[in-house]
Amino acid sequence: MVTIEIIAIGNELLLGDTLDTNTSWLCRTFTGLGGHVERAVLVRDDRPAIIREIRGALERGVQLLVTSGGLGPTDDDLTLQAVAEALERPLVLNERALALVRETYERLAAAGYVTNAQLTESRVKMARLPQGAEPLENPVGAAPGVLLRLDRTTLVSLPGVPAELKAIVTGPLRPILQELFGAGVFRQREVIALCRDETVLAPILSEVAERHPEVYIKSRAREFGPDIRFRITLSLSGRDPTSIEAKLEEAVRDLRDALRQAHIGLEA
Amino acid sequence: MVTIEIIAIGNELLLGDTLDTNTSWLCRTFTGLGGHVERAVLVRDDRPAIIREIRGALERGVQLLVTSGGLGPTDDDLTLQAVAEALERPLVLNERALALVRETYERLAAAGYVTNAQLTESRVKMARLPQGAEPLENPVGAAPGVLLRLDRTTLVSLPGVPAELKAIVTGPLRPILQELFGAGVFRQREVIALCRDETVLAPILSEVAERHPEVYIKSRAREFGPDIRFRITLSLSGRDPTSIEAKLEEAVRDLRDALRQAHIGLEA
Repeated sequence: MVTIEIIAIGNELLLGDTLDTNTSWLCRTFTGLGGHVERAVLVRDDRPAIIREIRGALERGVQLLVTSGGLGPTDDDLTLQAVAEALERPLVLNERALALVRETYERLAAAGYVTNAQLTESRVKMARLPQGAEPLENPVGAAPGVLLRLDRTTLVSLPGVPAELKAIVTGPLRPILQELFGAGVFRQREVIALCRDETVLAPILSEVAERHPEVYIKSRAREFGPDIRFRITLSLSGRDPTSIEAKLEEAVRDLRDALRQAHIGLEA
Repeated sequence: MVTIEIIAIGNELLLGDTLDTNTSWLCRTFTGLGGHVERAVLVRDDRPAIIREIRGALERGVQLLVTSGGLGPTDDDLTLQAVAEALERPLVLNERALALVRETYERLAAAGYVTNAQLTESRVKMARLPQGAEPLENPVGAAPGVLLRLDRTTLVSLPGVPAELKAIVTGPLRPILQELFGAGVFRQREVIALCRDETVLAPILSEVAERHPEVYIKSRAREFGPDIRFRITLSLSGRDPTSIEAKLEEAVRDLRDALRQAHIGLEA
């Protein structure tokens, strides 16, 4: 299974000004491809902090490392400087990235969105990539994404604006993810128990989980209240959809039987 | 300024099944008290991973370390075991925590929400705390929060259900936070620039920021589109509200002047 870590960058996240929805979207996307997101971290626009997180992930030998945020034109957009420094590589003007930035501003100027297409220093900044990196075209914004293929790790830097991040992942990054994840699959099933007391469910889930060590079983704690439904999800990743579905089906059946035996109702 | 780190625990966060809104709420709350959240990390229900994050934060000497999630009755609720192991302390049955758990189930049984008030192993589990910890009453759920006062760090473990987390922070944790944060304050001002091109704003913001090194100035990138407003926030934390407000006012005035000189419109 492909191991993944995410680094979300931006003071606004740690001020609580902006809710980081990118990380959750990336987690859902990678999980759906059969990947295993092990950890995600939110850090400030602080070069040493970003460098420390990148180095930590590389030392853990993670296969895919994704950063979000900090690719823009302002001085506090520090991600690529941090990536370069973490890898001990220089930042260099990337001609393909510069062509992408140029095209974007020509298009925006022609449409009247910006006053001119000049390659000012603030615009050129977005085309300075760590040596050896490839730009990933940004279909809805100015800052290209960045791809670096390292020995063990594929490092991808994405912009923090959600629409731009999603457009790169579902567009130019897609073939790279397919190559990385291969035919990985993820399946999830749900059982709704008519019960509001997790302490009653706990020993039952524990026994079922022991009989199905490969399947990941999780119950969702709800606030005590008038809702007497409890969501239990069962999930499994791997390469062979048939065997995954068979294992999940078996665990679901076992769980439903165990709940019924404990006189806990089930939603059909 | 009080330094803070947050550890959010739960596989559902890294599967992308559940959006972690707790971290953002905690960040906003602590920032509003004048604190400085340096980092937040999302990890799986995996004891070694949780231990590694706790130890890292303690080594960095953070003053407040908050964990969310993993306090419940199920086997994959591992937070307190991880805290105990990270601190090399045993988990012990805490009599005050047990009294809180007992009261909760007595109340729930009396109200007919649960079938009985027996102290089953799944319920008692929520009262096993790391040695030296104090429970924090959970006004809306069963699992108490946990407070540990260490040499340099105040460590607080909160449940992952948002209503429970918020009720503990705004209830029993409030006096502890007040003691820790003292009279810290945070102030933020906003300037709306009628401009959609961040590359034009970048050099202006950079100059203004250089003239006001204490003030944190951030522009919000928006997708290119029909919206021509750009949000710029200026913020500052400290102890003296009068001097903070004066410094912010000065920076806001300077920024508005610089934008006007560059013929960028301002929203009143």
